[in-house]
Amino acid sequence: MNANDAYAKLMAHSRASADIASTLSLLSWDQQVMIPPAAHAGRAGQIGALTAILHRRASDPAMGEWLAACESSELTGDAASPQAANIRELRRDFDQAAKIPESLAVALAQAASTGQRAWELARKDNDFTAFAPHLGTLLELSRQKAEALGYAGEAYDALLDLFEPGETVAAIAPILAELRDAATDILARVADAPKPAPLPAGPYPMAAQERLLRQTTARIGLPDTSSRLDVSTHPFSTLIGPGDARITTRFDEADFTKAFFGAVHETGHALYSLGHSGPAHYGSPMGEAASFAVHESQSRLWENQVARSLPFWQHALPLAAREFPQLAGLSPEDIFKAVGATQPGLIRVDADETTYNPHIVLRFELELALIRGDLAVADLPGAWNEKSQAILGLTPPTDALGCLQDVHWSTGAFGYFPTYSLGNIYAACLFEAAGKAIPDLPARMAAGDFAPLLTWLGQAIHEKGRLLRPRALLTAATGQAPTAGPLVRHLKAKASAIYGVGW
Amino acid sequence: MNANDAYAKLMAHSRASADIASTLSLLSWDQQVMIPPAAHAGRAGQIGALTAILHRRASDPAMGEWLAACESSELTGDAASPQAANIRELRRDFDQAAKIPESLAVALAQAASTGQRAWELARKDNDFTAFAPHLGTLLELSRQKAEALGYAGEAYDALLDLFEPGETVAAIAPILAELRDAATDILARVADAPKPAPLPAGPYPMAAQERLLRQTTARIGLPDTSSRLDVSTHPFSTLIGPGDARITTRFDEADFTKAFFGAVHETGHALYSLGHSGPAHYGSPMGEAASFAVHESQSRLWENQVARSLPFWQHALPLAAREFPQLAGLSPEDIFKAVGATQPGLIRVDADETTYNPHIVLRFELELALIRGDLAVADLPGAWNEKSQAILGLTPPTDALGCLQDVHWSTGAFGYFPTYSLGNIYAACLFEAAGKAIPDLPARMAAGDFAPLLTWLGQAIHEKGRLLRPRALLTAATGQAPTAGPLVRHLKAKASAIYGVGW
Repeated sequence: MNANDAYAKLMAHSRASADIASTLSLLSWDQQVMIPPAAHAGRAGQIGALTAILHRRASDPAMGEWLAACESSELTGDAASPQAANIRELRRDFDQAAKIPESLAVALAQAASTGQRAWELARKDNDFTAFAPHLGTLLELSRQKAEALGYAGEAYDALLDLFEPGETVAAIAPILAELRDAATDILARVADAPKPAPLPAGPYPMAAQERLLRQTTARIGLPDTSSRLDVSTHPFSTLIGPGDARITTRFDEADFTKAFFGAVHETGHALYSLGHSGPAHYGSPMGEAASFAVHESQSRLWENQVARSLPFWQHALPLAAREFPQLAGLSPEDIFKAVGATQPGLIRVDADETTYNPHIVLRFELELALIRGDLAVADLPGAWNEKSQAILGLTPPTDALGCLQDVHWSTGAFGYFPTYSLGNIYAACLFEAAGKAIPDLPARMAAGDFAPLLTWLGQAIHEKGRLLRPRALLTAATGQAPTAGPLVRHLKAKASAIYGVGW
Repeated sequence: MNANDAYAKLMAHSRASADIASTLSLLSWDQQVMIPPAAHAGRAGQIGALTAILHRRASDPAMGEWLAACESSELTGDAASPQAANIRELRRDFDQAAKIPESLAVALAQAASTGQRAWELARKDNDFTAFAPHLGTLLELSRQKAEALGYAGEAYDALLDLFEPGETVAAIAPILAELRDAATDILARVADAPKPAPLPAGPYPMAAQERLLRQTTARIGLPDTSSRLDVSTHPFSTLIGPGDARITTRFDEADFTKAFFGAVHETGHALYSLGHSGPAHYGSPMGEAASFAVHESQSRLWENQVARSLPFWQHALPLAAREFPQLAGLSPEDIFKAVGATQPGLIRVDADETTYNPHIVLRFELELALIRGDLAVADLPGAWNEKSQAILGLTPPTDALGCLQDVHWSTGAFGYFPTYSLGNIYAACLFEAAGKAIPDLPARMAAGDFAPLLTWLGQAIHEKGRLLRPRALLTAATGQAPTAGPLVRHLKAKASAIYGVGW
């Protein structure tokens, strides 16, 4: 077969699969935001029908023939070309899909579905034993999946690679340990320092929060013409199709910062989604996100490096004070310090910038031990509590507030957690590099001008799609291989500014 | 192949197709209600990908084998059984899909897509000549489609049968003529009678309209748990999946009756959709609507026979007056008369009960002449204006208000219009029969108790799905073959009550 014909067929196949996958995103968005309560059972059938079609397309033998025709042609001659990247990434996706037997894929999907439901009930009832058999099944199937996929080092690597191409236990364990130790160091130093004053008490009326939030996301650069903001129980961001990135939030009238930083976080995801899915590449790997960690880097950068910074509040405080009179007497420094305070807590999703990564280390070490078989499912609650005391200095009073707090394991997503911390690391690397490329960035942010930063991120990350694997992408964007250094510097500088501690 | 296995495979195939088709409904609902403006182009790709999958599934040769295995078995022994109906209707659908070559299906879809866009512009610019070539293409392709499908009488029958199984020109032409003559008769008699007073002027605030409307649709029997009400430019009803029927409306603060009767109309559609798609049969023909006319009968019955009746306003006026103080001095008779007044107009969608059917006769006669080749596309505007004068006594000042007013022909939907009048006829037949089955129906309606009527319709129509073809379904429901008689009686009785004219 002619290589150009084969490439055209590959692209058409990829585009149609993207159209089906994005329709699945709509089914899911609608289920979380719009669906009437009686329709959930029917929605499962719709999602199942489309998922089955996608699975069959992903391992369609014709893909193998088209890929072979392309790989032996000059289309892959320039490894840095979009065509070569598309062929390389479609090969990766096809091999992964083809390696997993349909029976295993179906068993995993079913175990994830029943596992998630069992987890919801177990968490509500604080009953780990009700969830334990599901976790055991998911672990066993995930080990089978790892064996089917293959690995050079250990089984966990195969699972991690699905979320973060190229990463291994050997590569990430030391980085995560570095983050854990940095957090321990910072927490020890600030322990006896005077704490910043908390923000004034609510109420922060929902309508006012929504106005401020819409103003902020628009100012950051998320256009109304290609996005929506809605309310859902669990805030999320999703790309429904080209030109259609939707975010959700949840309002708490006692504390406007929850919805505010949450929505800025989701805006970061949405900006990346819109940036990589432009008309030139939508429907091919070049039009897709590079990895979960790169995605998280975009949300964390806008949430933490931007929206929790002093320059940002020089811009945003007058707008916030117009909506919330109780903020009128505050200075930008006051609000910067209040939203930057650090305090260990039991719940990951409520953690601050400094204590977030230790939560990830805890989960990574436990899921690694579970996959390796070094930790029995029945021993998980005890191991969790012990490690929580060692890393965070806190022992959860219940499993619901401990090893049952996150949904991830109930869907079999082992290997996902590390991408959160890698995302935090990448965010700090990128923001440091952006600061060098845009010398007046703090002044621009203080003036509410975020366009230079968004443009820089667009060119460095968004428009690159899957052209490069995550670490290579970061290296190309920042001029050096990513390390934990910039994030540790960022956290220490913040501790110094807020608590007056030094190193 | 074992017949029971074949039937199980047929049902699974049908269910998965229903899941894909209902996902298409969600894509369309979202596009009309929720989508950000930049996403329309991408949405077309998603709709295209799913439509292509559905088309391939509909003519999948495996269906032919399963059907043959079922048809030669005892599964079809009892023709009145759900299994036999499912096999009969799947055979109909499969044969129709298999008869139309893929090239023709693609050409029709493309012509419909470009035709609709051309029509939108032509109507805006009042430029029929810009639309004429598209109409010519759509007619030629529709004639090819009729030939591919085959027919006993004439080509138009094949197109009509797609919307209304079993109907023919020979069968419907006399009924439509009867409705036209009845309208002419009524209009002549009321011409010199004193006109009822119109409703008080607005404003009717949107929020108050929405409250009244939600109260009304809930009272009629559309539960919040399995429906939504949203706003869209063109009001519609759609079944998104089992337990998920959504309606839309559009508010006009000068006239609350537009949104009110529109939403009651869509509620009638939604109640039928929920009624036929219950868990026992969803995903098979037994879980589908019997025809377009039967669907329209459900919307028209609630809109016209119920919500425009005197008993209804005995119940609803106090609720309406609580929202709209300007209604406080009115009697139920006043509002019954105001919303029942008749007056010929140029626009079909604004027509009252009496003048609506003449609009359909006009379109039916013209599209029949176009398909037959008796009328050239270029002569359509003149023929429309002439017929409009003859039937409605009005000549449109522009084509935008004449032959360009409806979207249907621009999508190639020849044969659709008659289902509107058949729906009106069926609504009157059903309401007359319901009145016999529920002797105190007017009193129940005046008390705001619509449950007996909904229950009767559910048993007579909704739960029957496609068990019977439309006329047989109506005959079984009412005890006699459907005729125009009940509708003509209904319209004359209303003219007598409002204008004091007699026969």
